[in-house]
Amino acid sequence: MSTFLFVTPTWDGQAWAQHMQGAMPQRTMRVWPDMGDVADVHYVAAWLPPANVLRSLPNLKVIFSLGAGVDAILSDPTLPENTPIVRVNDPDLTMRMSEHIVLQVLMHHRQQRRLDANQKAKIWDNFPQHAASALRVGVMGLGVLGADAARKLSVMGFPTAGWSRTRKTVEGVHCYAGATELDAFLARTDVLISLLPATLETDGILNRGLFQKLARSGPFGAPILINAGRGRQQVEADIVAALDAGELYAASLDVFQKEPLAPSSPFWSHGKVILTPHSAADSDTATICAYVAQQIERFERGGDLQNVVDRRQGY
Amino acid sequence: MSTFLFVTPTWDGQAWAQHMQGAMPQRTMRVWPDMGDVADVHYVAAWLPPANVLRSLPNLKVIFSLGAGVDAILSDPTLPENTPIVRVNDPDLTMRMSEHIVLQVLMHHRQQRRLDANQKAKIWDNFPQHAASALRVGVMGLGVLGADAARKLSVMGFPTAGWSRTRKTVEGVHCYAGATELDAFLARTDVLISLLPATLETDGILNRGLFQKLARSGPFGAPILINAGRGRQQVEADIVAALDAGELYAASLDVFQKEPLAPSSPFWSHGKVILTPHSAADSDTATICAYVAQQIERFERGGDLQNVVDRRQGY
Repeated sequence: MSTFLFVTPTWDGQAWAQHMQGAMPQRTMRVWPDMGDVADVHYVAAWLPPANVLRSLPNLKVIFSLGAGVDAILSDPTLPENTPIVRVNDPDLTMRMSEHIVLQVLMHHRQQRRLDANQKAKIWDNFPQHAASALRVGVMGLGVLGADAARKLSVMGFPTAGWSRTRKTVEGVHCYAGATELDAFLARTDVLISLLPATLETDGILNRGLFQKLARSGPFGAPILINAGRGRQQVEADIVAALDAGELYAASLDVFQKEPLAPSSPFWSHGKVILTPHSAADSDTATICAYVAQQIERFERGGDLQNVVDRRQGY
Repeated sequence: MSTFLFVTPTWDGQAWAQHMQGAMPQRTMRVWPDMGDVADVHYVAAWLPPANVLRSLPNLKVIFSLGAGVDAILSDPTLPENTPIVRVNDPDLTMRMSEHIVLQVLMHHRQQRRLDANQKAKIWDNFPQHAASALRVGVMGLGVLGADAARKLSVMGFPTAGWSRTRKTVEGVHCYAGATELDAFLARTDVLISLLPATLETDGILNRGLFQKLARSGPFGAPILINAGRGRQQVEADIVAALDAGELYAASLDVFQKEPLAPSSPFWSHGKVILTPHSAADSDTATICAYVAQQIERFERGGDLQNVVDRRQGY
């Protein structure tokens, strides 16, 4: 007997199990901590697994990551060393992330919060606006998500560049690569968008020193930060200080060091912050379950798993 | 001596004249009502010209329209019959209009106003969202502006259709045409975007009867209206009634029957309305002046004028 187990303490595992059962009716579904006979567990979907849980499964064949970032699995210090981790490839998630990024850039570009305030105050003020060609956007992280967002920003008319660890090629996008080209990338960027994977290298990368390297010659006089990657990449005290000092003009934050964000966070009521609750790109449950079922079927027929995570790179 | 005259009572003609002087330093600039010797006026830029003013210019060669819509000129009952009207072709204006349309669609699609309210109330609520593939958008009017907006909405992943008087072809967009296909276009449309030219045929076209023909099977259960064409195309009492009756889910309105919109209008404070002050696509003054200068130079060298308005069609 082959069991599919959810080890997702912060999610509604029962709801996920019900969806997954629909995608693979023959398999037994279980939700941690009710694991049944651990010898039966061949497949796991994990998100922030507690220590020693995955390690306790003697016949575990594949770990599935249901989100784009696998840091929530790699952070388990007791993670079994040789079990492959498969990241779900969800084109729907890519589309959603690009929607979020294009929406956030356009809200800043067109000063939507100012328009909102004018509507509320019944003020008819057609203030001058700059052209998209005047606002240089830059995407850090050119994986599937970053590349798609960059391409769509370019279609909208923004001069678009990207930066990644290794060199990438994206249509319409000037691609910078590696530590040596980071400063040049930042120096030409009015709107910095982070879609970096969460690795040790990117922890705290969005800090005041980096903000100070961004362009100050754009239409707003100071740069704008959009983070939809991971909260641990941002130094939150630095963002508040940079906003208050005018070193950042505004920010759109979807992720935070600790989620859900505490009511005491200054971000909620900061006039220069557009805040969303880690909702930039939700995965579609049906799409994900179908993908996982297809991967297992392929694997059991003797095929190779797809989208296997490179643990050394962290993504 | 050849004079360029601005007849734009509701605009700051002096500021425009100053910009235009920069583009054609040799020519005399005048601003109505100070027309100087009317025999010298060879070229006019007009917007809502008072009756008999253009008719009083014996040597008028070309009338320039500085906006995308020429209804503000064609509405002059005393308009000289045979003087060509040239519409300014501003690629920048097209880009801006598409920014506005994509921004408005994304704000509704991603429920930005709900996110705004949650931020204000410090509520962390990652509510379920639908995919772009579930929201069918439809663009009425497939001129330069409508076609570009439709193409960009399609790139963002929305199933996109368009409707125009005569059949058009736009990449990625299902194009409906003519009165006989209007109902089919409306029946598959969750988000209706109007970028129609203002003609007698389109006056009041956005009325309750039309709203009732839109799809009700979309993710919001009722359709959304986005009008960035002309205010005279919308029956404003019908929009309010349809919103209040749930026949429209929401609306984004940039144009109004009377502008600036009166403080007494119910749109300002309507919870389902995103209101902008006819700012969807401002023309860039420098771009426009350069275009007009180039057209005059071409015309005086014996070349054909470009973008001449077809008065029978009204655009």
